[in-house]
Amino acid sequence: MQVERLAEGIRKREIPALARAISLVENGRDGFESLLSALHEDIGRAYRIGVTGPPGAGKSTLVECLIRGYRKAGKTVGVIAVDPTSPFSGGALLGDRIRMESATSDPSVFIRSMATRGAGGGLSTTAREVCDLLDAFGFERILIETVGVGQSELAIAATADTAVLVLVPESGDGVQALKAGIMEIADIYVVNKADRPGAERVKRDIEVMLGIRRGQAYRHVAPHHRPEFGGGERGQEAEPAAPAGSWEPPVILTSAVKGEGTELLIEALEKHREYLERSGELERRRRERIERLTREVVDRTLRQLVWHHSDAEVHLASGLDRVLRGERSPYELADEIVSAVRKEMAHGA
Amino acid sequence: MQVERLAEGIRKREIPALARAISLVENGRDGFESLLSALHEDIGRAYRIGVTGPPGAGKSTLVECLIRGYRKAGKTVGVIAVDPTSPFSGGALLGDRIRMESATSDPSVFIRSMATRGAGGGLSTTAREVCDLLDAFGFERILIETVGVGQSELAIAATADTAVLVLVPESGDGVQALKAGIMEIADIYVVNKADRPGAERVKRDIEVMLGIRRGQAYRHVAPHHRPEFGGGERGQEAEPAAPAGSWEPPVILTSAVKGEGTELLIEALEKHREYLERSGELERRRRERIERLTREVVDRTLRQLVWHHSDAEVHLASGLDRVLRGERSPYELADEIVSAVRKEMAHGA
Repeated sequence: MQVERLAEGIRKREIPALARAISLVENGRDGFESLLSALHEDIGRAYRIGVTGPPGAGKSTLVECLIRGYRKAGKTVGVIAVDPTSPFSGGALLGDRIRMESATSDPSVFIRSMATRGAGGGLSTTAREVCDLLDAFGFERILIETVGVGQSELAIAATADTAVLVLVPESGDGVQALKAGIMEIADIYVVNKADRPGAERVKRDIEVMLGIRRGQAYRHVAPHHRPEFGGGERGQEAEPAAPAGSWEPPVILTSAVKGEGTELLIEALEKHREYLERSGELERRRRERIERLTREVVDRTLRQLVWHHSDAEVHLASGLDRVLRGERSPYELADEIVSAVRKEMAHGA
Repeated sequence: MQVERLAEGIRKREIPALARAISLVENGRDGFESLLSALHEDIGRAYRIGVTGPPGAGKSTLVECLIRGYRKAGKTVGVIAVDPTSPFSGGALLGDRIRMESATSDPSVFIRSMATRGAGGGLSTTAREVCDLLDAFGFERILIETVGVGQSELAIAATADTAVLVLVPESGDGVQALKAGIMEIADIYVVNKADRPGAERVKRDIEVMLGIRRGQAYRHVAPHHRPEFGGGERGQEAEPAAPAGSWEPPVILTSAVKGEGTELLIEALEKHREYLERSGELERRRRERIERLTREVVDRTLRQLVWHHSDAEVHLASGLDRVLRGERSPYELADEIVSAVRKEMAHGA
């Protein structure tokens, strides 16, 4: 059976098997869930890092620095780029792509891009499942690059263990979104292109925002553990200290093109990984992720049953004209479709 | 029956009935779909305008100007604010709220806020359904204010007839998102706070981006109608003209606090409304919206059947521990839940 051969190939760390498995999952083709199911026991060893931020923030260059840094430390790295503007996903300048070659010729690095267009709300589930494949394959660090400063964009990063938000001195909208509290809190903040004017101001804005929200944001963390990097890392004695045992998101200035500050970022990432393990937060986040995944798989299966394996689509097409003529409401039509689907489902159950 | 009384009250233009109906819909309480279904024939007369943009762009002040402008023109106005930072939804400074009083004491204006938190992916459906209530009530212009520069935020605005994107000279991330093509195209662009430095540059950036994307973005518009405001409105003879009969999104400079430029915005809105009607685009957009709504109602109904009216939730809770112990995969658990749900559904069908 193809699924078992693929699972076996992934366990044996065969790149062609991994590439085929990713295509299978991305396109939702027959057997992709069986494959993920078969690999379930091999999943859960990788440390997953989500990197998000507006287009033009230099995320790809930063990801490149992280790849190099982790390779230097002897770690294998898998990368998923969910970003139409990223060189990894083919949206950027040729120069960027060539620059990447140095990283991709290394067999311990695997880079794969995913399209954001057309996938709709299911993208975060699919991105997560592709991460699961990289995890099962044995990559020790997995980087998920997404683009945007809206709620749905950070949600993709939040399927990782650690969420990194990358801004630049010009990120007026991003900083406003943070201030207004419409963006979820990240675990680590980066102000990239920090050699440009305004970097220190953006850093200060983020720190002030974190100071205001801190008491609220970390209530759920049990006060048992006190990380040794405590509250002093940011050197802001004037601000109230974070509750003992909580994580205080650092704000790191980098210039990825010059390779400056990226070592500090890797340090912060590894500290956060240790914190997650020590505090039990890693366990909690992973449990939550498995619960969410199960719910999403149930919803996805039902949507597919309805729209691909029943007469719902035909029913909708024929009923829509009557709705437009005012003979019935969309709710009456939806009700008819649901009733018909339930009858059909009963036969297959 | 309560639903019929509410429908009757809305048709008689009774504000308390409207307010109660909105609460019913917002909270998804019993009968809300019957109410919307009963009002279906009364829906479709209002012109709906979506206003979105980053927090701090001055959207609320701009919406205030639009309310005043439309009241001056004798139109009734309904407003839905889906924005935690808006004075309408209670997130902003007291000063802003007091400033709003002038508008809200007018009985021909109705303002209602909606929370963005917790509602998840269903928010755009609910916002659309609240608009339907305001439409059935008889408001001639409906303004939907949302916040953000991500894909999901503009999606809410896109449930309107006309989508307006508001940026400010500081909107680095928003402009980058437009350039990178990760934001859907709006029908009208506004650069607010245009008295600040950089406004003309942002306007030019948007215009260049529109010039690049034009051929692509408007392919679907039939070349039968040539609006009299043609391609010359923006005074950019050097750029290739838009295909005849297509809409060329204008970029309008405003200073909402000073009330400057907002008359131009209302003019552009009314021109777009006329264009939509003349070109058949209004009909097409509304048809598409009804189709999308029907699909969403089907999916929502099934989700509710599964998670609120079956044993799926109990099944998930008891199965999750076995998944965490590695005894089964999330896919196997999801499969069990789906099978059980199908059997249960068969009984109710």
